[in-house]
Amino acid sequence: KSIASQPGPMHLRAIDTPYSGKEWLQPKRYKAHLMGTTYVYDFPELFKQAVLTQWKKHVPNAKIPFDFFAYKEIIYDGSELHFIEREPGANSIGMVGFKLDVKTPEYPEGRSLLVVANDITFKIGSFGPEEDVLFNKITEFARKTGLPRIYLSANSGARIGLADELIALFKVSWNEEGKPEKGFDYLYLDDEGKEEFAKSNNSSIITEEVTYKGEKRHVIKSIHSKSVGVDALRGSGLIAGATSRAYNDIFTISLVTCRSVGIGAYLVRLGQRAIQIEGQPIILTGAPAINKLLGKQVYSSNLQLGGTQIMYRNGVSHLTAADDLEGVEKIMEWLSYVPSQRGAPVPILENESDSWNRDVEYAPVRDEVYDARWLIEGKVEEDGEYLSGLFDRDSFTETLSGWAKGVVVGRARLGGIPFGVIAVEARTVENLIPADPANPESTEVLIQEAGQVWYPNSAFKTAQAINDFNNGEELPMMILANWRGFSGGQRDMFNEVLKYGSFIVDALVKYKQPAFIYIPPTGELRGGSWVVVDPTINSDMMEMYADVEARAGVLEPQGMTGIKYRSDKLIKTMERLDKTYADLKKQLSSESLNPSERVEIQAKLKARERALLPVYSQIAVQFADLHDRTPHMVKRGTIRRELQWENSRRFFYLRTRRRLHEEYILKQIAKELQNSTRLKQIAILKSWLPATLDYENDQEVANYLEINGKEIEKKLSNLKEEYVKNSLFNLLRVN
Amino acid sequence: KSIASQPGPMHLRAIDTPYSGKEWLQPKRYKAHLMGTTYVYDFPELFKQAVLTQWKKHVPNAKIPFDFFAYKEIIYDGSELHFIEREPGANSIGMVGFKLDVKTPEYPEGRSLLVVANDITFKIGSFGPEEDVLFNKITEFARKTGLPRIYLSANSGARIGLADELIALFKVSWNEEGKPEKGFDYLYLDDEGKEEFAKSNNSSIITEEVTYKGEKRHVIKSIHSKSVGVDALRGSGLIAGATSRAYNDIFTISLVTCRSVGIGAYLVRLGQRAIQIEGQPIILTGAPAINKLLGKQVYSSNLQLGGTQIMYRNGVSHLTAADDLEGVEKIMEWLSYVPSQRGAPVPILENESDSWNRDVEYAPVRDEVYDARWLIEGKVEEDGEYLSGLFDRDSFTETLSGWAKGVVVGRARLGGIPFGVIAVEARTVENLIPADPANPESTEVLIQEAGQVWYPNSAFKTAQAINDFNNGEELPMMILANWRGFSGGQRDMFNEVLKYGSFIVDALVKYKQPAFIYIPPTGELRGGSWVVVDPTINSDMMEMYADVEARAGVLEPQGMTGIKYRSDKLIKTMERLDKTYADLKKQLSSESLNPSERVEIQAKLKARERALLPVYSQIAVQFADLHDRTPHMVKRGTIRRELQWENSRRFFYLRTRRRLHEEYILKQIAKELQNSTRLKQIAILKSWLPATLDYENDQEVANYLEINGKEIEKKLSNLKEEYVKNSLFNLLRVN
Repeated sequence: KSIASQPGPMHLRAIDTPYSGKEWLQPKRYKAHLMGTTYVYDFPELFKQAVLTQWKKHVPNAKIPFDFFAYKEIIYDGSELHFIEREPGANSIGMVGFKLDVKTPEYPEGRSLLVVANDITFKIGSFGPEEDVLFNKITEFARKTGLPRIYLSANSGARIGLADELIALFKVSWNEEGKPEKGFDYLYLDDEGKEEFAKSNNSSIITEEVTYKGEKRHVIKSIHSKSVGVDALRGSGLIAGATSRAYNDIFTISLVTCRSVGIGAYLVRLGQRAIQIEGQPIILTGAPAINKLLGKQVYSSNLQLGGTQIMYRNGVSHLTAADDLEGVEKIMEWLSYVPSQRGAPVPILENESDSWNRDVEYAPVRDEVYDARWLIEGKVEEDGEYLSGLFDRDSFTETLSGWAKGVVVGRARLGGIPFGVIAVEARTVENLIPADPANPESTEVLIQEAGQVWYPNSAFKTAQAINDFNNGEELPMMILANWRGFSGGQRDMFNEVLKYGSFIVDALVKYKQPAFIYIPPTGELRGGSWVVVDPTINSDMMEMYADVEARAGVLEPQGMTGIKYRSDKLIKTMERLDKTYADLKKQLSSESLNPSERVEIQAKLKARERALLPVYSQIAVQFADLHDRTPHMVKRGTIRRELQWENSRRFFYLRTRRRLHEEYILKQIAKELQNSTRLKQIAILKSWLPATLDYENDQEVANYLEINGKEIEKKLSNLKEEYVKNSLFNLLRVN
Repeated sequence: KSIASQPGPMHLRAIDTPYSGKEWLQPKRYKAHLMGTTYVYDFPELFKQAVLTQWKKHVPNAKIPFDFFAYKEIIYDGSELHFIEREPGANSIGMVGFKLDVKTPEYPEGRSLLVVANDITFKIGSFGPEEDVLFNKITEFARKTGLPRIYLSANSGARIGLADELIALFKVSWNEEGKPEKGFDYLYLDDEGKEEFAKSNNSSIITEEVTYKGEKRHVIKSIHSKSVGVDALRGSGLIAGATSRAYNDIFTISLVTCRSVGIGAYLVRLGQRAIQIEGQPIILTGAPAINKLLGKQVYSSNLQLGGTQIMYRNGVSHLTAADDLEGVEKIMEWLSYVPSQRGAPVPILENESDSWNRDVEYAPVRDEVYDARWLIEGKVEEDGEYLSGLFDRDSFTETLSGWAKGVVVGRARLGGIPFGVIAVEARTVENLIPADPANPESTEVLIQEAGQVWYPNSAFKTAQAINDFNNGEELPMMILANWRGFSGGQRDMFNEVLKYGSFIVDALVKYKQPAFIYIPPTGELRGGSWVVVDPTINSDMMEMYADVEARAGVLEPQGMTGIKYRSDKLIKTMERLDKTYADLKKQLSSESLNPSERVEIQAKLKARERALLPVYSQIAVQFADLHDRTPHMVKRGTIRRELQWENSRRFFYLRTRRRLHEEYILKQIAKELQNSTRLKQIAILKSWLPATLDYENDQEVANYLEINGKEIEKKLSNLKEEYVKNSLFNLLRVN
């Protein structure tokens, strides 16, 4: 152990380790580069560059703090983690940890990040028990502190190996001595071999003594080689479970910087957010092994199995990057939307040239197809003119765009406040399902997916995005809801659309930040697609809005009239409103008609009916459509308010500021008053606001809460005292 | 309101409602039968019959308690639920609730069940706000009391409608008066019409007054018809969210007794456990509407979209039944495994003729294919002889068997204790993907899925089963783990096998009851499939065992030798062990050989090598296989114990009894000592056991806890007192 309070760079290393120059890393660097990745100890430098890029991007003229980047290596000594500075490459296991302290545009005062990374140059980055322990300890530490955990994945799966020492020692008990071709019975050691093997540190065996023709033999019953095989699998299970828990608790993200195999692939998925470098596969079994299983050369490369053309298109990888620097930059960009640690307020990153207090300029036009992204980030017209969208210019980062293109998901800022955003593609998209190389009869299938419709894949993607925004990112959410329903044809029913649709409800139930559902102008929300985003699913957090130009109902007007305004009713309306038709009908009912007159009038009636039917059908559709307008939704409380798209940005900025402040305080109140209901908590918060304040005015409330932070903190601590008093009283009374 | 404390049968009904005879129900009954379902008020009788069936099945000679069945109807009066007795058919809305009090073989002292059911005879079972409120209130009540909630689904989705009164009143503003074919501008009411419409109770409108050619017109801007459309959607969202929460909290199950549409379909899925009656579809959109969308007659029936051949084969429906009685019987059978309410101990239902204290007779033979169900429930030989399995005879109920046949899941009893059971199909199974009727180019695809391999569907099914066992059923679990790994070919990687594999980890992380992973005799567990069931994923609850005849490792021996014991090493071994080969090699290295001799010896060497290679390959495989044996797993703690299949029933019976008792007490301790760690809780429990007790002996511990229940309860209440004292002290000290 070190004598100093802080362990030095030589901590835990052999006493005869020489101080070393930099060049000695070159072989490892070379090895890593050959595998297509950056040497693990060079990643901090990439993060440093990425932080610089962030500054240049978001605050081009800023004076970057001189100490904007610092890092320590994290090592584990068997009992606790240490954060030390030591030279690169001093690792004795294939897993390396870093704690980065960075000053970024969204956190100029600094934020901390935890990085855990495979060292692909150490036993080809395989996971052994020691690697697993470090991974687990860093993950535990991240969960304890609530800091983001970044995993740089470059590995070969769980470590394998055989007891090599034993290979040179074991003997074979032949069925017939001298005739090996007749087969063998068991493997054993003689006394000598056993003695020799006892010297091994890495392996052990269990033997059973038998005597064969007077010779003493130790039959080998079980062999164990340290840190490989089942030992490594157990460690893998440990970190799989830890990562599953971490995703629910903190911000987890993985960068697939080199191949990620087996447990490596599972860690990437269990941490959910994943950025995959082009050319680096995520696989469970290597191509050669699968070829062997199939008995033919089906795959020529691991990339066929788990390259970006597979993993980005099925939503395992959220983003792709051309190289490690770009990958790390994308991590830093993602983090710019995310609180520095669990429970902290979201970071505000204002775009000074795009005020919250402006109109939304781009607006969709009814019956014209448009790109849902224009609603979010605005549109650049062909003449170069920019029409602004709901969110800050250039603040939208789309993720999962390779998968299920019927929904658009990502993160964007509104007046600097980060949001999780979900929007709906109104255009038909294509879903290409590749042929299965292992099945010569299979062919590529191209499926057309209609716009504004949820399919199994886009419903899954919607739920995935909601979970990602909620877990670890703790973002407010905006769903620009514009769905005609779920696809209910046989293929999609068979493909479990009900399960994935239910995922959306399950995800919304758990949402812990304000979530706004907004039916955008010209948008519509029908039947099942309304049901799965209705605010009563989670009324504490969800609020629903509709544009004055939006529609909602169970069925579309055409469908509705087909059931509730059919031809019999249509004809009655005709009779009521069309004098000609009514007259003819009246004549027909006259008893004085002779047969030929009757036939003639009947023919006229039919002709009139045929002529009028199209316009009366339109009238019926219009009549049904009038049921789907927003004014009554406000009146009935099915939506909170109708909005004008142009003004929506102002509204949501103020509303979100207010809700975020409120929720932050409510969380503190809930912490102090355990077991109190939300109603109670809101009542307390309300009682802290001055009576003169207009509670319905989001701006006033937000401003008050912002300005009077100190006072509210005082009230919170009073609350604590009062709670203690009450608890005492209750305890004494009950017992 | 009723004068009596308990509301009578006429509660909440019009004062002039006559008392009515039974016959008046016949029209409704007939209506329900025409739709293919039982009239909702006849379901209690079905439950009664099903309870009788349970008695006959489980305790054929029992004296059934005379009061084995009673029920009340549940109604909601706008402020609270009432449990009343009133005659059938008195409902004024399309949703009906029952509380059943039944005495069953597993609960002869009685258990309560909550039933909520659509009345298909009331507005074709559509969901309006009032129906939604009753559904929600009963669901809330079930969650409050922890009772099982049964949903009988027979409906037409969210209620639709138009303001019919208005159809007879509105007028049309034509573009050109007298020429309707030139189209129209808007709909309006004149003064008279507006006055007339004001009398409507069901609808309202918002109008804007304009003057057109001196005439006053009220232009219709928005129409609202009560309880339909968006009103109904909002209620649907409410119960969707409530059902999603309920699944995580209590036992939820649905019986699809008639078509289930839209929100009806979603409720079935959100409650997860579903039994579907043959001939009753689960759909989102009806076939006619889809045909209209597609512009051709693709579907001739709703059953094509959501019949059992779709929904049972994709795992939405867990079971199917031929008719309602069979469906209700299956519900009662399922409930026989499930605690009477949340947190209660599991019900024990012993099979007197099948003691826990017996050998397991059926055992698989290496390299012979077998049916995984034989491990669970035993095997009846061709000669009629019964070889017993691990669980009680005839106690296994398989679910989800139409979907992903590579895993077998269900519930079974061991010595009367109910378990969730997951086993692995060792045979190749076929997965038939139907052609898409909407796409003439698509064809039926038959996929062969190898045994012992997790595919996307079977991994999803595994996770689904774990969640079902855990949520609401609160069962201990047995996974008879026998997997070679996950399918890692391109098709399955593209089909998101990583996501579904991760679901397994996510599900295990949350498991709250003892879960045993047991690699059965001749079974194996490799690589990724070990990782996702490793006990460190949830070490509080999971324990791993392996049969002495089982194997585990990262790779199979053949794969392992291909990497770590290749031909160079093989030849070295050959040289070491085969005298002939070694001699030839030695001769070859002699310098005195002339070229022809050298060629000759070389040829001999090659020949010898060729002859020996097969057997040496086998030796290498054997050598690798010795690394995969159980003894070292026990030694290294990667499994808790190795078991002998024959004796495994005894072991698991005692172990489970002990663990269930312990967990039950630990839960109580945790309730008293909030914020205490599990280690602390275990230490307390341990301190309550007498020092003379062998803590490692499951039978002793189980017996002690069983016999000394009273004493332990006393200790629990002491704990409470102590806790109060400590809390007081802490509060005083801190503040």
